[in-house]
Amino acid sequence: MQTNDWDIIITGGTLLTMSGKMEIIQNPFVGIKDGIIVAIKENGNQQNISGFAKEYIDASGCIIMPGLVNTHTHLPMVCFRGMADDLPLMEWLNGHIFPAEARFVNKKMVYDGALLAMAEMILSGTTTFCDGYFFEDKIGQAALQSGMRAVIAQGFIDFPTPDNPDPSGKMVIAKRFVDRWKNVSPLVATAFFCHSPYTCSPETITTIKEAARAAGIPFLMHLLENKDEIPTIIKRYGRKPVQHLLSLGVLDEQTIAVHCNWVDGEDMAIFAALDVKVSHNPESSMKLAAGVAPIPEMMRRGITCGLGTDGQASNNDLDMFREISMAAKVHKVITLNPTVMDARTVLQLATIDGARTLGLEKRIGSIEVGKDADIILLDMNKPHLTPLYNCYSQLVYAASGADVITSIIGGKVVMKNRRLLTIDVDRAMENVRRISADIKLKQA
Amino acid sequence: MQTNDWDIIITGGTLLTMSGKMEIIQNPFVGIKDGIIVAIKENGNQQNISGFAKEYIDASGCIIMPGLVNTHTHLPMVCFRGMADDLPLMEWLNGHIFPAEARFVNKKMVYDGALLAMAEMILSGTTTFCDGYFFEDKIGQAALQSGMRAVIAQGFIDFPTPDNPDPSGKMVIAKRFVDRWKNVSPLVATAFFCHSPYTCSPETITTIKEAARAAGIPFLMHLLENKDEIPTIIKRYGRKPVQHLLSLGVLDEQTIAVHCNWVDGEDMAIFAALDVKVSHNPESSMKLAAGVAPIPEMMRRGITCGLGTDGQASNNDLDMFREISMAAKVHKVITLNPTVMDARTVLQLATIDGARTLGLEKRIGSIEVGKDADIILLDMNKPHLTPLYNCYSQLVYAASGADVITSIIGGKVVMKNRRLLTIDVDRAMENVRRISADIKLKQA
Repeated sequence: MQTNDWDIIITGGTLLTMSGKMEIIQNPFVGIKDGIIVAIKENGNQQNISGFAKEYIDASGCIIMPGLVNTHTHLPMVCFRGMADDLPLMEWLNGHIFPAEARFVNKKMVYDGALLAMAEMILSGTTTFCDGYFFEDKIGQAALQSGMRAVIAQGFIDFPTPDNPDPSGKMVIAKRFVDRWKNVSPLVATAFFCHSPYTCSPETITTIKEAARAAGIPFLMHLLENKDEIPTIIKRYGRKPVQHLLSLGVLDEQTIAVHCNWVDGEDMAIFAALDVKVSHNPESSMKLAAGVAPIPEMMRRGITCGLGTDGQASNNDLDMFREISMAAKVHKVITLNPTVMDARTVLQLATIDGARTLGLEKRIGSIEVGKDADIILLDMNKPHLTPLYNCYSQLVYAASGADVITSIIGGKVVMKNRRLLTIDVDRAMENVRRISADIKLKQA
Repeated sequence: MQTNDWDIIITGGTLLTMSGKMEIIQNPFVGIKDGIIVAIKENGNQQNISGFAKEYIDASGCIIMPGLVNTHTHLPMVCFRGMADDLPLMEWLNGHIFPAEARFVNKKMVYDGALLAMAEMILSGTTTFCDGYFFEDKIGQAALQSGMRAVIAQGFIDFPTPDNPDPSGKMVIAKRFVDRWKNVSPLVATAFFCHSPYTCSPETITTIKEAARAAGIPFLMHLLENKDEIPTIIKRYGRKPVQHLLSLGVLDEQTIAVHCNWVDGEDMAIFAALDVKVSHNPESSMKLAAGVAPIPEMMRRGITCGLGTDGQASNNDLDMFREISMAAKVHKVITLNPTVMDARTVLQLATIDGARTLGLEKRIGSIEVGKDADIILLDMNKPHLTPLYNCYSQLVYAASGADVITSIIGGKVVMKNRRLLTIDVDRAMENVRRISADIKLKQA
């Protein structure tokens, strides 16, 4: 093997680096070796390439950009997609989702559901996700199979769950989870997820945050998704939710608050002061009529925000390009200001800012020499993407996940010309159809 | 030729009729002859078919549904897609769109732009559109080429335009337009479009409505897109916009009010009393930060509403499935009620209610015997559409235009397995790329 060999060479097209300088390179040369981006040059097709590449990718007519980062998923909920929609929130949760989860969630369902969800994510341009669900080890195993980059979060809640009938002994569970995944794969990282301030006691929250700090991993929590969380927490603890978490000492730069639809000025000031991260899930919160997080105001205050889809029971898809389009539009109409959440800003939210939210900004989120090679290609030679004046606008306001044709994660090609290389997609669909057939049968 | 011959037979899959009874037929048989749906039966693959069909379509694994009706477009604006986004409204209009239109709109631009837009529409499931732009005859000609069903609206505005340097002599223009298109094609109907109450004088509005009444065709107008239209019209005419039009006597069941983001209770009462129709364009009004029309309240009052995309400079695509998804979500979060605009209702808006808005409900908008054959097929065998509990939910919350594989308009197959049969798509893209290259060059 020669010293100058490459694993993958990409040439042609238009490269959106999404780096600090937001360079856009026409007709670039991108060289990848051992999972790392080792060269980015101009005039790609005129480069004198020394050595050979195992794989050449011609990106003519394509946009090359960093893979998308989905900061909040519950992947196995794909099995419940479209099962119960357009319902009042509590009827949806208590009458449909929670009973279905109590009855149908098991290791096989989690693995099969997650694998199909990963097929859907790769097919629509996502390369990294952060997930919280039951039997989270199975999500990690599906990630290893699919080749996706994952932050898998062990969940905690103060009532019995399918994977933990006895909610005591949390510290043991937490430590074992982290130990199990240590050094398994550079693509799989761990985190802890306390469900919410209204389902987790102060003791649970502080214990798990302590374990997260000990392990040096992110700590996630659903926060202020719905307005009525405020009186509930005030009644129980005498403080508003964010003040409650502040008093517990669990807010810091490795805390990710998910949703945050009802944060007020004080809450945002606390987030900014302590560098708390926010996961924004506009489509889910719109469909559930939960609210719209004041993301433009949070970003103005310097709070790091990432985009996420939430679970497919409340979205109902994992296409981050739809989420991007929604994020760009909903804040404009809510604030009656067409200049907020411009195309460039929203694409940053879905790439480098998402990476920053998960603490992965040194490795992914932009295309720069030295970073891991998480790269997607979109075929722009389509009627709905013609003509092309501005790449950012086109991606945000006209493109969809179906325009992604090739995906590279950690230097490995996981999809080429829309063919998945790591997942048997027909089998993945058939496995989930069997699960849903069983659900339909037993619910009938 | 035998008496029992069919032109097209569709069998298999799931048929959503979208008829009054909203029947859903599994594994149907649909027979089409002379552009008309002549038979709908159950157990499609067991039917004894007498005679032969010219074309057989196997819809196994597909949803069969009526083609989508886009009630508001400015198709040639595809040439400006992504040219100027994320700007304050008046800077966008006066600094970019109006100057570009004054400079670059001509017959060739209108035809080429419209044809590419039709490719995009067919590829994403739309079979009928209602358009208003300059050189509208060219849109009609592109519709004849593409095989799409069209309502082409001659526009009127009180200042010189690319196609009418002298805004006087409106009645002559109006009559000639209607006469030119009389009996040209059963797929192309005409209408008149007065731009808005703030760009058209009372004399223009009453004259054109009179001509529309004489011809028995729809009369359209942008209305209450932005909030500041209210003080403008009150200052000029002493009445709120809808009251102003009421006093002019131009509101009736063949009037289509486009946008209506800022209607109040009185306005809605007038619309309901006079059966005025409303075209709802949620994505455009969100992107422009114009507002959100109170569609659930209007529908509760019995006002007929249809969906539309508006032009691609303010959307920026023509995918009605994205518009459907947006309509389902934005009203939920605006009203904080997850039960409004349920999936079934929104799909009606995009099909039968859209047809009703355009006065075409006796011919299209549902799949029923005797109606014109405007039918689309969606391939549901995809990860993001798996599993399938509820067809309406899946189409609204998970499907996208890229899932449409086959389209029939007026009994003619215009797309099969995503191949366009009436438009040379590479040439259509190349033509518009040339136009945009010229625009870029001259604006540089």
